[in-house]
Amino acid sequence: MSLLRHIRQCNEHRPDHFVPFWHRGDRLGLIRKKNAEALRRFPSAYEVDADAVRLVVDGDFDALSAIIEETTEHLVAEGLVAKWRNEFFAAAPRWGAPAHFKIDRGAVPFFGVRAYGVHLNGYVRDGATLKLWVGRRSPKKAVAPGKLDNLVAGGIDYKHGLLETLIKESEEEASLPPAIARHAVPVGAVSYRMAVTHGLRDDVLFCYDVEVPPDFVPNNNDGELVAFTLEDAAHVIELVRQGDTFKFNVNLVLIDFALRHGLIAPDDPEYLDLVTQLRRPLD
Amino acid sequence: MSLLRHIRQCNEHRPDHFVPFWHRGDRLGLIRKKNAEALRRFPSAYEVDADAVRLVVDGDFDALSAIIEETTEHLVAEGLVAKWRNEFFAAAPRWGAPAHFKIDRGAVPFFGVRAYGVHLNGYVRDGATLKLWVGRRSPKKAVAPGKLDNLVAGGIDYKHGLLETLIKESEEEASLPPAIARHAVPVGAVSYRMAVTHGLRDDVLFCYDVEVPPDFVPNNNDGELVAFTLEDAAHVIELVRQGDTFKFNVNLVLIDFALRHGLIAPDDPEYLDLVTQLRRPLD
Repeated sequence: MSLLRHIRQCNEHRPDHFVPFWHRGDRLGLIRKKNAEALRRFPSAYEVDADAVRLVVDGDFDALSAIIEETTEHLVAEGLVAKWRNEFFAAAPRWGAPAHFKIDRGAVPFFGVRAYGVHLNGYVRDGATLKLWVGRRSPKKAVAPGKLDNLVAGGIDYKHGLLETLIKESEEEASLPPAIARHAVPVGAVSYRMAVTHGLRDDVLFCYDVEVPPDFVPNNNDGELVAFTLEDAAHVIELVRQGDTFKFNVNLVLIDFALRHGLIAPDDPEYLDLVTQLRRPLD
Repeated sequence: MSLLRHIRQCNEHRPDHFVPFWHRGDRLGLIRKKNAEALRRFPSAYEVDADAVRLVVDGDFDALSAIIEETTEHLVAEGLVAKWRNEFFAAAPRWGAPAHFKIDRGAVPFFGVRAYGVHLNGYVRDGATLKLWVGRRSPKKAVAPGKLDNLVAGGIDYKHGLLETLIKESEEEASLPPAIARHAVPVGAVSYRMAVTHGLRDDVLFCYDVEVPPDFVPNNNDGELVAFTLEDAAHVIELVRQGDTFKFNVNLVLIDFALRHGLIAPDDPEYLDLVTQLRRPLD
């Protein structure tokens, strides 16, 4: 089977079903046309027309965040936002730009705000063989319950930087000590845009590799992962190729790992499509 | 200065100045509109109109190659093909697909046929410091004379596979023994499309990393590189950032190396543009 199908799956969306979400001349998201109708009830805050939604209030970060929060409460009540997570992401026009406001993670797909995460490939060298730590997600997770995952992964909230998030999640998810997590190597990113039940995921995942000591055994502290196994990296890629045992976006992080570590032969006819399509251009 | 400018430079072209070059339903290249006029003199072989050029003869690989060769001779005489290289590339609709014909490397930009190359990053670990072997191109090279280069780089001709090319070039360019070159790790590719004097470069460079022994010293055998130095990788990236001392496309290979080895901080505002634009989608 094909590795490329995972990239296609993570990019399934109909651009014509979404309209840009603007504020002060910046596009901050993409809203499903059907969902945009729900914002007509707040005409003092949103201007909704056929080809755009505009947040028309002015104000500083806190004032705008309060308005988005109020909207989110209504959307939760209407069932248009899946779940109240009490974790807030930054809404910014691009990486490194100041955020216009913060937004509850649960409302991120509704507004189609770009979200950023960190994913950590934890590996061990066993002679010439590369082994990867694989986590299994809790059956209670809202997204991809029971699926396989990276050693550590987490969303970047509006208060934490990349490395801070990586260190925090490393402790919570795998008991990986800060002294090791701090030496994780940033190795690039993958990006995709995928339609989901409540809107759109416009995601960027920063990828990190860390060589962990041979005697390290991960241990979960936050209930998000229920088991860990150390697998031959080549076997992990074979699992990615053959099935859907990994969470949808973790497949992309693992394909990136495989490409960087020579686990996919460059004369594979899919090779250049994998290399060029793993990172959706950001607009 | 910006790293991104190198990617922009390698992608400078006006799509509206080029027309697709078709054969049997496959697009094999992109021809500058002005150059297409020169093919009107061979109406039995080429159909030239405002929005396409078609090779209208049928025949097997050898027969078609002979026709292209004959055209090339005329183009050289007219000064539309820069140089006769007597090295032949495959013209195929995509990576891994059978070639329709072979074409002299000198004529590749005229027809805008996609060309493939291998680039080898030769590195040494010195404690926690990564060092890169840098070559200096001969002042006599037609392309980028005197510029800095990778340890090994070369085009993939129609007769050689990826690894074969890598091993052959490693010996010719750097006296890197096959036993070491064979263990080079394929780590991805970069791609770009750039207008040049005689047409268009539509290039894919397969990237390889190889850790060379600390006592290895490269030695050139084919006159293409005139000197080698071992530099701190961080210093190499600083050179890429600050100037244009490297050959235009080698900058892209080095940016890819830097991204994979954590030499560019992911909170650099350019980071995601580098990651997503280093590999032009193939069409």
